Amino acid sequence: MKLSDIAARLNCDLSGDGSVEIFGVAGIENAREGELSFLVNPKYFPQLKHTRASGLIVGTDFGPAHIPLLRHRNPYLVFAKAIELFKQPRKQLPGIHPTAVVFPDAKLGRDVAVGAFSTIGARASIGNGVQVASHCVVEDDVTIDEQTILHPGCIIRERVRVGKQCIIQSNAVLGSDGFGYAKQDDGSWYRIVQAGTVVIEDEVEIGAGTMIDRAAVGETRIGQRTKIDNLVHIGHGCQIGRDCLICAQVGLAGSTRLGDNVILAGQVGAAGHLTIGSGVIAVAQTGIPSSVEPGKVISGSPAIDQKTWLKSSAIHARLPELNKHIRDLDKRIRDLEIIFKVIHESRE
Amino acid sequence: MKLSDIAARLNCDLSGDGSVEIFGVAGIENAREGELSFLVNPKYFPQLKHTRASGLIVGTDFGPAHIPLLRHRNPYLVFAKAIELFKQPRKQLPGIHPTAVVFPDAKLGRDVAVGAFSTIGARASIGNGVQVASHCVVEDDVTIDEQTILHPGCIIRERVRVGKQCIIQSNAVLGSDGFGYAKQDDGSWYRIVQAGTVVIEDEVEIGAGTMIDRAAVGETRIGQRTKIDNLVHIGHGCQIGRDCLICAQVGLAGSTRLGDNVILAGQVGAAGHLTIGSGVIAVAQTGIPSSVEPGKVISGSPAIDQKTWLKSSAIHARLPELNKHIRDLDKRIRDLEIIFKVIHESRE
Amino acid sequence: MKLSDIAARLNCDLSGDGSVEIFGVAGIENAREGELSFLVNPKYFPQLKHTRASGLIVGTDFGPAHIPLLRHRNPYLVFAKAIELFKQPRKQLPGIHPTAVVFPDAKLGRDVAVGAFSTIGARASIGNGVQVASHCVVEDDVTIDEQTILHPGCIIRERVRVGKQCIIQSNAVLGSDGFGYAKQDDGSWYRIVQAGTVVIEDEVEIGAGTMIDRAAVGETRIGQRTKIDNLVHIGHGCQIGRDCLICAQVGLAGSTRLGDNVILAGQVGAAGHLTIGSGVIAVAQTGIPSSVEPGKVISGSPAIDQKTWLKSSAIHARLPELNKHIRDLDKRIRDLEIIFKVIHESRE
Repeated sequence: MKLSDIAARLNCDLSGDGSVEIFGVAGIENAREGELSFLVNPKYFPQLKHTRASGLIVGTDFGPAHIPLLRHRNPYLVFAKAIELFKQPRKQLPGIHPTAVVFPDAKLGRDVAVGAFSTIGARASIGNGVQVASHCVVEDDVTIDEQTILHPGCIIRERVRVGKQCIIQSNAVLGSDGFGYAKQDDGSWYRIVQAGTVVIEDEVEIGAGTMIDRAAVGETRIGQRTKIDNLVHIGHGCQIGRDCLICAQVGLAGSTRLGDNVILAGQVGAAGHLTIGSGVIAVAQTGIPSSVEPGKVISGSPAIDQKTWLKSSAIHARLPELNKHIRDLDKRIRDLEIIFKVIHESRE
Repeated sequence: MKLSDIAARLNCDLSGDGSVEIFGVAGIENAREGELSFLVNPKYFPQLKHTRASGLIVGTDFGPAHIPLLRHRNPYLVFAKAIELFKQPRKQLPGIHPTAVVFPDAKLGRDVAVGAFSTIGARASIGNGVQVASHCVVEDDVTIDEQTILHPGCIIRERVRVGKQCIIQSNAVLGSDGFGYAKQDDGSWYRIVQAGTVVIEDEVEIGAGTMIDRAAVGETRIGQRTKIDNLVHIGHGCQIGRDCLICAQVGLAGSTRLGDNVILAGQVGAAGHLTIGSGVIAVAQTGIPSSVEPGKVISGSPAIDQKTWLKSSAIHARLPELNKHIRDLDKRIRDLEIIFKVIHESRE
Repeated sequence: MKLSDIAARLNCDLSGDGSVEIFGVAGIENAREGELSFLVNPKYFPQLKHTRASGLIVGTDFGPAHIPLLRHRNPYLVFAKAIELFKQPRKQLPGIHPTAVVFPDAKLGRDVAVGAFSTIGARASIGNGVQVASHCVVEDDVTIDEQTILHPGCIIRERVRVGKQCIIQSNAVLGSDGFGYAKQDDGSWYRIVQAGTVVIEDEVEIGAGTMIDRAAVGETRIGQRTKIDNLVHIGHGCQIGRDCLICAQVGLAGSTRLGDNVILAGQVGAAGHLTIGSGVIAVAQTGIPSSVEPGKVISGSPAIDQKTWLKSSAIHARLPELNKHIRDLDKRIRDLEIIFKVIHESRE
């Protein structure tokens, strides 16, 4: 495909020679001749002079370059669409693998794919075009809506409901029992039957090895279009809003609520029974012990305002210095005090 | 079931109309008419006036309310038992699924269930009433005692011993190889054969996606009635006591010992070869670099006494202010010093 | 085996009676008569007088003892080799289990083992002596080189390449889709097709439940002989060098590069697009927000030099005290200022 055709299809302003033939998309460092790349993160700007890419997707304010540029207001989004020109995600062909075990009373829509050794439980309802890869477990009374994709090894426990156009990565578990125990008089823990379920709304993505527990009563809910990364723990009864990004290894204790458009970076943890407002951004490893107002950017453990945290962290690294400064001040005050005493006594 | 009957069965003091018919249990916010709820966490007290629940389980000191109350000294425990009146955990029917692969010399007790595509290895011993769900791997020489439940996707590696009435959630792995390497002269890592095993005592629960490594020599052991949440890592050779609560995403490096009744909140990490005494409580995200005396409540990374940590954390957020204060003091001392010099010189 | 024979085979200096018969290897605390143990970590030195071991592997500078000693410059390595004298890792017998599903056009080398319910995809290439345990998924176009071991439940997604003599622990996933989204004008997230792959070089080990995401474009790469522990998240496009140790629950955001011989202790997190130099050591729970020079030892979140961090942390625990000290200094200065004012006024 010619670069000028790509520019047209992706609605970019082309500067430079558009006649070059492009055969693929690559990162700026690894791109070969004939590949299209992108340059958005300033960290990689020094790579500009070394790259062998035959074209670059950049922002509208990007300066001139010795290689053809495709300028766009949202270059990262254009990059995403450029990949699709050359690579379509693999699609599982419809059909039930002969080794799959599908309960006779499960309802399967049109063009459903069920891979090797996967099981579909009693009364499960699988929508049109759903792709269940190999080695998945879909238990009794589960609902999975149309076009959703389950990668190998997913486990969807009983009664869980998954919306349409969701993507569940490998070895994720939806509907594992919540971690709920009541303390008994002898100090031992009495198990609380986890009688609730999990609801995943439409267009949600769940990362590999992520665990979403079912509620004790009621439901754990993941809102529309929210994206969850790998190895995340969502405790029982959590309510996540729409369009959130929950990065890898985040953990939410039970019954915490997130608004919409919340971003939790990697390894963030939140206590239970909190309300985290819409638009909140928590920097990586933030520990959230209490509810957070909408729109806040927070950091640290325990979480504070991110700007304060940056300043506090800078001083934290200088605490030994500060400590010495305080001891020095103490000594200088003591000296002054002694001189004073001398003056005072000499005046008496 | 009438509310008065529930009160009687759960041994609660009923105040209000006990004749109302109850059909289920729900959270305070979602309860509908005819449902029983509970109110223990003061965070939810404002919900009291909005709830549509037809009855509430509360503590003995809870004030009067416009809806019937079931008072008990341990309301959370009563709530747990109330759920059971309406919802029993699903039970897998005994029997070996035709697709399961059971080694001829494995010993299976009475009423054992083995689900689709599960494997039971050579010389494995499976007690009466054990439920092995679908897609589980029980390797050679494993012992699982009576009434234990394995949810789908559990992997029990060779020689591991699991006690009775345990519950293992989906995709947990018991007996993965420990992470042990000896450094060689050339800087590369020499693998240490992990020759030991894992022992899970009775009534233990293991969360979804939790990994418990086998010891290099000897055994990794989880004590009776200890409950472990999701995505926890237990390193090789750890010894966990009885009645502990290990919350989600906790990580214990190798050979660390926990006493009884230890609580490690979410994302806590502990170094290897430590002794953490009975009754220790570590707040979420605590990093434990050294052994901890019994009964301590700790927080922070590195862990310190929790009360000190709370105070230190409060000051941490004010470090920029403190820093400015110190600079101001310095200036004021300098001013005094200059005046002194002037006085001193004027006196000479 | 006689202790003297073991000393000879492991190239140790024997001091004490070498005629004792040894039947196994055990930890210092659990060793019984007839077992060989080792003592390297000074934490366990007090165990010396209690141990029932019949021999001890120790360093060359270890003092005299009442039991026979095997001295060596690298006692931990010798211990590793001593275990092998008594315990060989279990080996899966070659052969394809009748329940396995192997695509007709997959290429299998000599002496390959494929366990129950495992699947080998189209055009996959499996080297000589590879052991694929039960319940593994090897997808289309995967390459696995000779002598590599896949434990039960591993998922190797399409096109991933695994080198020779690697060990992949249970429920690890190689090649899950990276977490990449471009923000759209309406605030929602547009999925970036993850068109790249994962390359695992030779002699790499991957822990149980570890997730390694495929790159958006290009590849995620794990260098030769690097060892990765359980529940680690490696984001898309990361490049890990050789001989690294990545401990449990570490998380690396996308496109971060590690040099060789890097050690990341448990629960360390690193932001995306960083360069972490060769030989860097990050202490447990370190949060790495920016690139790190080779050879640095770092700690804290955000990461700083480890020695500074130790000092800062010690002072952090004393912040309430420091704060009081500052207030005291302020008061003493105020007192001096008042006296001054008095002196000054008395002189006018």
